[in-house]
Amino acid sequence: MSPIVSITRLLGFIHRRKSQLIVLLHSSMAPITNGRVLFNAIPQDFPIPGKTTVYDTTQTIDLDNVPLNGGLLIKVLVLSVDPYMRGRLRAPEIKSYTPPFILGESLTGGGIGVVLRSEVAGVEAGNHVRGMLAHQEYVIAPSLAMLEVIERDPKLDWTVYLGPAGMVGETAYMGWREYSGAKKGEVAFVSTGAGAVGSMVLQIAKQDGLKVIASAGSDEKVKFMKEIGADVAFNYKTTDVREVLAKEGPIDIYWDNVGGSTLDAAMEFANDHSRFIECGQISGYNNGYQPISNPGLIFSKCMHIHGFLVGNLRTKYGAKFRAEVWPKLVSGEFKFKEEVTRGLEKVGDVILAVQKGTNTGKAIVVVAEE
Amino acid sequence: MSPIVSITRLLGFIHRRKSQLIVLLHSSMAPITNGRVLFNAIPQDFPIPGKTTVYDTTQTIDLDNVPLNGGLLIKVLVLSVDPYMRGRLRAPEIKSYTPPFILGESLTGGGIGVVLRSEVAGVEAGNHVRGMLAHQEYVIAPSLAMLEVIERDPKLDWTVYLGPAGMVGETAYMGWREYSGAKKGEVAFVSTGAGAVGSMVLQIAKQDGLKVIASAGSDEKVKFMKEIGADVAFNYKTTDVREVLAKEGPIDIYWDNVGGSTLDAAMEFANDHSRFIECGQISGYNNGYQPISNPGLIFSKCMHIHGFLVGNLRTKYGAKFRAEVWPKLVSGEFKFKEEVTRGLEKVGDVILAVQKGTNTGKAIVVVAEE
Repeated sequence: MSPIVSITRLLGFIHRRKSQLIVLLHSSMAPITNGRVLFNAIPQDFPIPGKTTVYDTTQTIDLDNVPLNGGLLIKVLVLSVDPYMRGRLRAPEIKSYTPPFILGESLTGGGIGVVLRSEVAGVEAGNHVRGMLAHQEYVIAPSLAMLEVIERDPKLDWTVYLGPAGMVGETAYMGWREYSGAKKGEVAFVSTGAGAVGSMVLQIAKQDGLKVIASAGSDEKVKFMKEIGADVAFNYKTTDVREVLAKEGPIDIYWDNVGGSTLDAAMEFANDHSRFIECGQISGYNNGYQPISNPGLIFSKCMHIHGFLVGNLRTKYGAKFRAEVWPKLVSGEFKFKEEVTRGLEKVGDVILAVQKGTNTGKAIVVVAEE
Repeated sequence: MSPIVSITRLLGFIHRRKSQLIVLLHSSMAPITNGRVLFNAIPQDFPIPGKTTVYDTTQTIDLDNVPLNGGLLIKVLVLSVDPYMRGRLRAPEIKSYTPPFILGESLTGGGIGVVLRSEVAGVEAGNHVRGMLAHQEYVIAPSLAMLEVIERDPKLDWTVYLGPAGMVGETAYMGWREYSGAKKGEVAFVSTGAGAVGSMVLQIAKQDGLKVIASAGSDEKVKFMKEIGADVAFNYKTTDVREVLAKEGPIDIYWDNVGGSTLDAAMEFANDHSRFIECGQISGYNNGYQPISNPGLIFSKCMHIHGFLVGNLRTKYGAKFRAEVWPKLVSGEFKFKEEVTRGLEKVGDVILAVQKGTNTGKAIVVVAEE
């Protein structure tokens, strides 16, 4: 074959396979690193950054060619770090309400990302999705099953949609509406009243016309609780909860985020027919749960104690939540604090901060700008 | 004055004052003993007959002339002895859901009596009244405030109206209807399933189409629980509750009359969204309450724990209870056991038996025949 014939053939091939060639050229771009936070070792008590979880950069991803198999390619923007995640850092044989993280695989959690490529009908590149995302820079989601397409109010950052406009706000609003039985003039006690959930509970309770007693672990947090309307705010590390409740109680509603001795005290100073909302008990997550000392109070005071998971209340309250709470976040009527950390590699530190309570406000990790 | 004149005057006097004379003759009848059970000493643990309570015969009563001041004179026929009474044998400064008994005064409790004299409009001698009565042979009630006039079905003894047709049946029926959220096919666990309340709960749960696991403290009681429909009945003194619940659970509803380690086990083997009805915790009444070991299960399993007092549910369920339960007691569809003790002086022994669980069936003291 002469060189001329060869070149002619080659040009003809190029012409016929133009679209394929573009793909080939594209796919020749180097795959890029896909940073991931992996579950590395089951913690004994508090999770240790770099041991319990490790930041891994060994995986690469070819953003243009990675097969989606009918799914979505998502660039992760923001991730939520929440107290409940401690329960997922466990051995797989232990049953609980959330699935365990899998050793050697990425953590997962609430997050928001932007769609880079989509093979899901109705979802396009540039859409934003919120839901359970792997703690990675890029995620391939097989479907929208664990995600929803979401739009942002220009006045609110995406981070807010993981906090008071997201699962955190839903937890406060839906738990309160379903179980508080709040009546104007009653007394509510909110533990972790400066926290992501607690601060929303505090403001919803005030909106409902209750007297609100709120506790937190620093004077800065006490100041914030007063700013957002707490009638009584105290630092439980320097003030005895029993003294406060003896003076300001008895209480009709207790929103529990801590458990332990605070729960005991709340029961002691509870009114008859009081409602206790068990949102969480962070005092027990890392060192084991402290027992409830006087269970006889449950019947002698006709108490009602409710455990709940927000996922079970979304069908009933989802639309109401968006209609009632979102506008108050946009208008600034509902206030909130965020503690934003930049860099996926920081997730381990943020998980520990949330378990220790050293963060102030909703803990968010920003993985990437859009 | 001649004897004739004297006799004539006397006859004239008798004629004029005939009605007064009858009263005088009557009132000259010796007052009779009014036996009473007095609260004598605060018990350290189990109440001791003759020490915690004493039977006293020093009081007398003139049945015909004792002033009623607008009230009723009642001859007590039957008295109810219930587990909750332990809580009333306490120091007056300790607050609780029931008023303390008063040292040196008669115990009080559920009872039925017959009216001997009445100054209450609408109530006549011969009527029967049910309600809170002093543990005495005769009681003067200031009004009907704590009592109701009651008629008996000829097929049922008065004792039944203190048991399954009374407060005991109300407790089971109303607590179950209000808080169980029972759905056909669910699994219920009833502690003290052979007891006065528990045996009614067991039968109502079976009527609602549930699988019922029931525990009690003797083989005789296990036999009775099977007779009244328990799918699984066991003696907790010889069979490990955890083994039974592991095999026959998980449970959706737990009716708690005992607390302690049984409550812990029930929480351990509870389903998500289970409902726990805290009717009582007799394991804690005499030796102190055992803590709830794992309060984290309340939120991780989305449990709902309800304490209640039957008094708060009567307005809502009173008519339904009589319409639904009484006919089934008359027809024999609902079965029950009574342990009837004769003699007011035996109250102290019966109180102890109820706290120890050595009685079988509803504990009743018959004070007098009609």
